[in-house]
Amino acid sequence: MASPYDAMWQELGLDLAAHEQLLQVLGGGYQQVFLGQPNRPAGMDYFNFVMSEVHGLRVKELVEAQAAGKKVIGSFCVFVPEEVVRATGATLVGLCTGADFAAEEVDKLLPRNTCALIKSAFGFKLGKICPFIEAADMIVGENTCDGKKKAYETMGKMVPNLYVMDLPQVKSDQGRALLKAEFARFLKAVEDLTGVTIDAAKLREGMRIVNDKRKALARLNALRAADPAPISGLDALLINQVAFYDDPIRFTGSVNALCDELEARVADGQGAMEKGAPRVLLSGCPMAVPNWKLPWIIEQAGAVIVGEESCVGERGARNLVDDSGQSVDELLEALVDRYFQVDCAIFTPNPQRLAHVEQMAAAYKAQGVIHYCLQFCQPYQMEALPVEQALKAQGLPALRLETDYSQEDAGQLQTRVEAFLEMLEK
Amino acid sequence: MASPYDAMWQELGLDLAAHEQLLQVLGGGYQQVFLGQPNRPAGMDYFNFVMSEVHGLRVKELVEAQAAGKKVIGSFCVFVPEEVVRATGATLVGLCTGADFAAEEVDKLLPRNTCALIKSAFGFKLGKICPFIEAADMIVGENTCDGKKKAYETMGKMVPNLYVMDLPQVKSDQGRALLKAEFARFLKAVEDLTGVTIDAAKLREGMRIVNDKRKALARLNALRAADPAPISGLDALLINQVAFYDDPIRFTGSVNALCDELEARVADGQGAMEKGAPRVLLSGCPMAVPNWKLPWIIEQAGAVIVGEESCVGERGARNLVDDSGQSVDELLEALVDRYFQVDCAIFTPNPQRLAHVEQMAAAYKAQGVIHYCLQFCQPYQMEALPVEQALKAQGLPALRLETDYSQEDAGQLQTRVEAFLEMLEK
Ligand code: SF4
Ligand code: SF4
Ligand code: SF4
Ligand code: SF4
Repeated sequence: MASPYDAMWQELGLDLAAHEQLLQVLGGGYQQVFLGQPNRPAGMDYFNFVMSEVHGLRVKELVEAQAAGKKVIGSFCVFVPEEVVRATGATLVGLCTGADFAAEEVDKLLPRNTCALIKSAFGFKLGKICPFIEAADMIVGENTCDGKKKAYETMGKMVPNLYVMDLPQVKSDQGRALLKAEFARFLKAVEDLTGVTIDAAKLREGMRIVNDKRKALARLNALRAADPAPISGLDALLINQVAFYDDPIRFTGSVNALCDELEARVADGQGAMEKGAPRVLLSGCPMAVPNWKLPWIIEQAGAVIVGEESCVGERGARNLVDDSGQSVDELLEALVDRYFQVDCAIFTPNPQRLAHVEQMAAAYKAQGVIHYCLQFCQPYQMEALPVEQALKAQGLPALRLETDYSQEDAGQLQTRVEAFLEMLEK
Repeated sequence: MASPYDAMWQELGLDLAAHEQLLQVLGGGYQQVFLGQPNRPAGMDYFNFVMSEVHGLRVKELVEAQAAGKKVIGSFCVFVPEEVVRATGATLVGLCTGADFAAEEVDKLLPRNTCALIKSAFGFKLGKICPFIEAADMIVGENTCDGKKKAYETMGKMVPNLYVMDLPQVKSDQGRALLKAEFARFLKAVEDLTGVTIDAAKLREGMRIVNDKRKALARLNALRAADPAPISGLDALLINQVAFYDDPIRFTGSVNALCDELEARVADGQGAMEKGAPRVLLSGCPMAVPNWKLPWIIEQAGAVIVGEESCVGERGARNLVDDSGQSVDELLEALVDRYFQVDCAIFTPNPQRLAHVEQMAAAYKAQGVIHYCLQFCQPYQMEALPVEQALKAQGLPALRLETDYSQEDAGQLQTRVEAFLEMLEK
């Protein structure tokens, strides 16, 4: 099917046939998973539209911005500070890593025992199907897990503009100093790329934009404490996913408009699911577009997901930056303060994450927690058991699941999820 | 079979029955793999003796030293500076992690996708069969790969005295500063544990002992360049393994005595293997006692291993410390200089390792390289392909193998190794 964006995609170097295939799968999956949900808020129309235009209008906006001298930076981790990017008027996009592609070519470059997320990033590049990767003026890698850290060495040979950010593994004074130094180095790199000098006013403006986005997401999350939940977990996840590539100001407005609607729903006792539906908290690895398999299985089984303890969720979006600083250095300190709180499993020890899972379960009145790991993700797999133990100590049931992006285990996952939900209802 | 050491082992808290089982397996394996080798140097007698007494006499020595007020520290990584430990008169022992044990209990604590080395460390502790773990006054973990880094969080609940050392992931100025700070913190911890204040003279003495050990190992390695190689790769590996728990001064003397013998052999054109036997360099994950499977298969197939690019080998033992500094801080700087050169795959980027593989292959006249990975070891698996590519560019054949501690794949490994050797001989 010819698309009005074909010329743009061709110019970006996409493989049009393969890309068309991806869009078909994506569109079909979206239709099945999202559009059939009952009682969707009207405010989801905006996100339907964004999703339908994710490779089209949104890319066109970015390409046009580039023609006007603006830059686009891609990233794979919530540790890359969007505030710094925004301060120059550039755009940060999270690169999707939620589907398998070009698996054969990927297997030539990456060990079999690599998580699906990393394989997906390689597959989208090798398969030439991601307009964001192709359009990006710079792609930022980061030393988080072993898999990503080492895969960037290979990716550096595949993309012309990879920048690698080092990250600490311990929340010590030395670790904080490293993060500060790396944020300062990144700020300089963004200045060099964009030709814009970041002063305190510009950085504060970047912080304001990103803080507003985070406030809107926090507002959305808080509303999900109601019973019935005013929005499905799938839709909430989608909004968190869209947060990574939509225009942040427009996105924030749309989330707030949706929240107005959800507030009215809560006041009326209306919900996306029935009152009394089993309430589940999801915790674990990030879920990137179009990785909707597990949430779909959970909500198809009649439960409602009331929160995501995930980087595509509250782990990534919580905590604001104090933007009251007067100098770039003061603001940078505040930025480090905020990001140093991200409790990714790559840190050791990482008790903050366990505490956050418990806190979210209580705040959103979850009756059980599903801990989700990608296969071969050692950091989150290693934390799965302590999380389960901590929850059990609180009397909260937990289910540990491990999966990938294939559909092969869908039946098995469904069986396990249903058994878990049955237990919750007793 | 009652042993004269039973009382000691019991006092250390070992499970005598399980331990006896381990000794049987160990002894049987040793007999089969080592004692049947042709043309072994007489100097290997010492190492036979050490191995036969590894849980006996050696542990007795340490327990007696402890009774006299000395301390014993256990570690899992060559980044723990033995010089600092030696400076106080304490002993550093590398903890064996080369065999599966108590697999069922281990699987309750660690994800399935954990490398055999980490599982082994847990198995030896859970199975109560390692007198070194039980005797140690302090066990040092380190933030290297994701697997170990996160597993130490759990191990910290199993052993009373775990100390965790943070390590950098990048060889930057910040990375070096982190290593320096962590070595200084470790020095303080060792002082606290031992009650000994480390002054420059003591630290220099520690450095001298460890440098001497490294010089002896380098001397041994250099002799293996001869054709025929004067010593088998299995015996050389054993010596490298013994280096981790033997008394360093006695060990150094024994290695040097052996080297005298090997020098005479080389002068006489005598070898452990036939002249012209295919020469193989081993590169990859460390091989801890009693992980002798792959070297045994290689040498059974008629090849000789001429070097180990491994932490139980030249990666761990090369490079001396400049011990000319006059203050503790100066010496600490020199220590950091030396350890910062260790080119473990946890660093990114890590071109030094590739260069070292090439350099070793040339120095020891290897005709091919076998790259060995433990299953689920992401850092070394990620480097396996670049290593292979770098070698191919030099016209050197390489074989990438992935295995674990089971014997199940022995036949398959044998087939692949034999095919590789046949290709070398063409
Ligand atoms: S889980 Fe960790 S590595 Fe992944 S996006 Fe979050 S912070 Fe980054
Ligand atoms: S899912 Fe786990 S292994 Fe994969 S990129 Fe994220 S942290 Fe790394
Ligand atoms: S391979 Fe790396 S983690 Fe393992 S012992 Fe060597 S330096 Fe330490
Ligand atoms: S073999 Fe690999 S995964 Fe295992 S402990 Fe060593 S570096 Fe870590």
